[in-house]
Amino acid sequence: MTKTFDIVVIGAGPAGYSAAIRAAQLGMSVACIDNNLDSEGNPTLGGTCLNVGCIPSKALLDVSHKFHESQHYGDIGIEATDLSLNLAAVMKHKDSVVNQLTSGIGLLLQGNKVEAIEGTGYLASENVVVTDRSGNTEELNAEHIILAPGSIPIQIPSAVVDEENIVDSTGALKFSEVPKRLGVIGAGIIGLELGSVWNRFGSDVVILEALDDFLPMADARIARDAKRQFTNQGMDIRLGSLVTDSKVNDQGEVVVTFTQKEEEHQLVCDKLIVAVGRAPNTDKLFSPESLVQLDERGFIFVNEFCETDAVGVYAVGDAVRGPMLAHKGMEEGVMVAERIAGNKPLVNYDCVPSVIYTHPEIAWVGESEQSLKGDGIEIRSGTFLFSANGRALAANDATGIVKVIADAESDSILGMHVFGPSASELVAQGVIAMEMGSTAEDLALTMFAHPTLSEAVHEAALGVAGNAIHTLNRPSRK
Amino acid sequence: MTKTFDIVVIGAGPAGYSAAIRAAQLGMSVACIDNNLDSEGNPTLGGTCLNVGCIPSKALLDVSHKFHESQHYGDIGIEATDLSLNLAAVMKHKDSVVNQLTSGIGLLLQGNKVEAIEGTGYLASENVVVTDRSGNTEELNAEHIILAPGSIPIQIPSAVVDEENIVDSTGALKFSEVPKRLGVIGAGIIGLELGSVWNRFGSDVVILEALDDFLPMADARIARDAKRQFTNQGMDIRLGSLVTDSKVNDQGEVVVTFTQKEEEHQLVCDKLIVAVGRAPNTDKLFSPESLVQLDERGFIFVNEFCETDAVGVYAVGDAVRGPMLAHKGMEEGVMVAERIAGNKPLVNYDCVPSVIYTHPEIAWVGESEQSLKGDGIEIRSGTFLFSANGRALAANDATGIVKVIADAESDSILGMHVFGPSASELVAQGVIAMEMGSTAEDLALTMFAHPTLSEAVHEAALGVAGNAIHTLNRPSRK
Repeated sequence: MTKTFDIVVIGAGPAGYSAAIRAAQLGMSVACIDNNLDSEGNPTLGGTCLNVGCIPSKALLDVSHKFHESQHYGDIGIEATDLSLNLAAVMKHKDSVVNQLTSGIGLLLQGNKVEAIEGTGYLASENVVVTDRSGNTEELNAEHIILAPGSIPIQIPSAVVDEENIVDSTGALKFSEVPKRLGVIGAGIIGLELGSVWNRFGSDVVILEALDDFLPMADARIARDAKRQFTNQGMDIRLGSLVTDSKVNDQGEVVVTFTQKEEEHQLVCDKLIVAVGRAPNTDKLFSPESLVQLDERGFIFVNEFCETDAVGVYAVGDAVRGPMLAHKGMEEGVMVAERIAGNKPLVNYDCVPSVIYTHPEIAWVGESEQSLKGDGIEIRSGTFLFSANGRALAANDATGIVKVIADAESDSILGMHVFGPSASELVAQGVIAMEMGSTAEDLALTMFAHPTLSEAVHEAALGVAGNAIHTLNRPSRK
Repeated sequence: MTKTFDIVVIGAGPAGYSAAIRAAQLGMSVACIDNNLDSEGNPTLGGTCLNVGCIPSKALLDVSHKFHESQHYGDIGIEATDLSLNLAAVMKHKDSVVNQLTSGIGLLLQGNKVEAIEGTGYLASENVVVTDRSGNTEELNAEHIILAPGSIPIQIPSAVVDEENIVDSTGALKFSEVPKRLGVIGAGIIGLELGSVWNRFGSDVVILEALDDFLPMADARIARDAKRQFTNQGMDIRLGSLVTDSKVNDQGEVVVTFTQKEEEHQLVCDKLIVAVGRAPNTDKLFSPESLVQLDERGFIFVNEFCETDAVGVYAVGDAVRGPMLAHKGMEEGVMVAERIAGNKPLVNYDCVPSVIYTHPEIAWVGESEQSLKGDGIEIRSGTFLFSANGRALAANDATGIVKVIADAESDSILGMHVFGPSASELVAQGVIAMEMGSTAEDLALTMFAHPTLSEAVHEAALGVAGNAIHTLNRPSRK
């Protein structure tokens, strides 16, 4: 028997469940298929983000930051000489956060009357076939099908994951003890976050990055400041280091061979994390007869409305072009549901915030100074250091900078870049301002509560016209 | 000899120094007079805010929060059995933050070529007379005079401050040991912040509030949630309690007599903080011949441009109508400097954020639900609990709520209220949105980074139209 729905969604990660929930809110009958299992083999909703991505990593980042910070509490008058880490309890806390949120998604689907179906979804020529864990299949028929399969860690032949000594980002969230020596391949967002976690817990961390540039997608000034800071924190970041081989020796150590400046080097570590990026999870997702196509990079080809080449089939989230970010996927999911219902929202791909949850955090929206200049656009920028911010000083956490970049002619904000405490939250101010078409002057004329970290955003915006109050203005850099 | 300047500013607190700096940036010659002395009798810039207000209180709030939080780190896997407080080191940290910022103001005045003058400024009929600590006087002549005298704690006869057992907000920042029993008169912003500091450090805190309502200026839902939370934290908040007498007995205890529901009660404590509000500091500030007038509440009378009744004389900050907030004063100072220079900025008094730095923090901008309904305005509101926010859960800090209130007809945002982690920073998102004339839908269509606390703002905005994704929408309350 074929069940019929208005919409079938394949994947219950952020993009998929958001699409399903919004579609149901709009009155459609919706099924949402997911085959994800937790480490004990039980079905779990929420995809990579909730289970082995954003959420567990943030729990570990938060605990490890507190652990590291509390070792320096003597500076502010709190004495603690016997601080110790109970890693099993840390992992229990992390798992409890994950369980709370993944079970919450189940309740949200249920409360919105979305039918959650456990199994692997496959788009045949027209219908969706679900295969459950026992191998039973069921056919679902729907006028609209939304593919939200997510992404998976990229594997490289020079460091084959064995889930014991050589792990991917999933394995790196569940070490049972703190590795003494930790190697990380990749100084991207995931590598820096996981490297930070274990560095704070006590590992000696070496990060091998193939590129010569550090965080090329971030503003160059921010990337420079951040690299210096991370190095001071004890992370040994080796740029231009191409891994050619990784072997586990008889002592159970991982021996990583890499070339740097045409010379071969070896790194011996106890655990190796491979964090070289993620690829769209499109294997066995759809049949050629469905008419869905991949683009030249292996992503599901979609237009700006997330429509595939197949009529009535949409794709959202990590498996389509654009940054692999949960919030981008969620907005795409909501947009598709709304457009199916006849509404006309768009995703504004120019206002997608990016965050790296190191400490200090790095966050930005819009373009970097170097990319704008590379495009020949005349800009003015204002910067403000957290070292002159009262709230940051009061919290003994005053490393970092805010940069606001505006068009030299129109004063429209083209980018905001934050390296500092709560950068992930402060960047939302830039997103809202840009979304509302704000100029730097608009932001400068806005009142910011004192004392807050947000005042650094205000001062950077004031600085665009050379009007900062709490720092001496240098001639604005054009 | 009379020195001549384009502008003379009396007062180097946030309102005064901001006016002075911006005026100097605009090319004017500026003097800024201040008579503030630190506890060692040395001149210190920055006014109440930097010396004995916002900044030192935030340093103590931050340390005390960390001290309290770290006692529960076992929940997240960090074990510390011998945590202890070194109050002298805490105070040293606080003083160092204050010194860094107050000396920074000196450098900013100098760098902007403002002449900082130590002494007490007095506006005579036309000129300003400065009297230094030795009693020497000097006359300053200026086309424009800006009065920024700030405010002082209100004294009440039923609890006369002796700076030993009975203190005001200044004395409460420098106890040399943690009082075992602490009484606080006033459950306003200052009373709650200082009560929180000492409660976290270990005092038994009783707060006596004359009003029957708790935080009547906050949104009623937020005030209710906050009171419950503060009570759980151990602060005994007694509303409707009017203090009639306070005496220090032979044992050095403070015996406070108060009436509650027409019954007389006594509270015995080791220290008593009087935090019943602040009054404009206008004593010996200007001569009647200056033509400057006070309003019926004792504030310097000014119009919306901060012009007094005397031509060329302006007043800004705590000494004029409007909330006594550093950021409101700073914006007034900047506005006056700009308007003297011929520019036409305005202060938008509808978009002034308020913050209470308890934990969780309370912050809001715009109107509360009860005040809008009281005015007969039809509204729709959306709320979101931090208990459903991934970032808050990952940080083990998920108490609180965001409420976004919009006009039922136009959807314009009329208020945003936050009780929760980083409320002080999140509220800036509401300020920017309101300043830019955003509707709740505009905010709902904006992309928020995941996982962040800011997503609670997003969900509350979505909730205005019943479109929240991560909570089950109840019919929007109109």
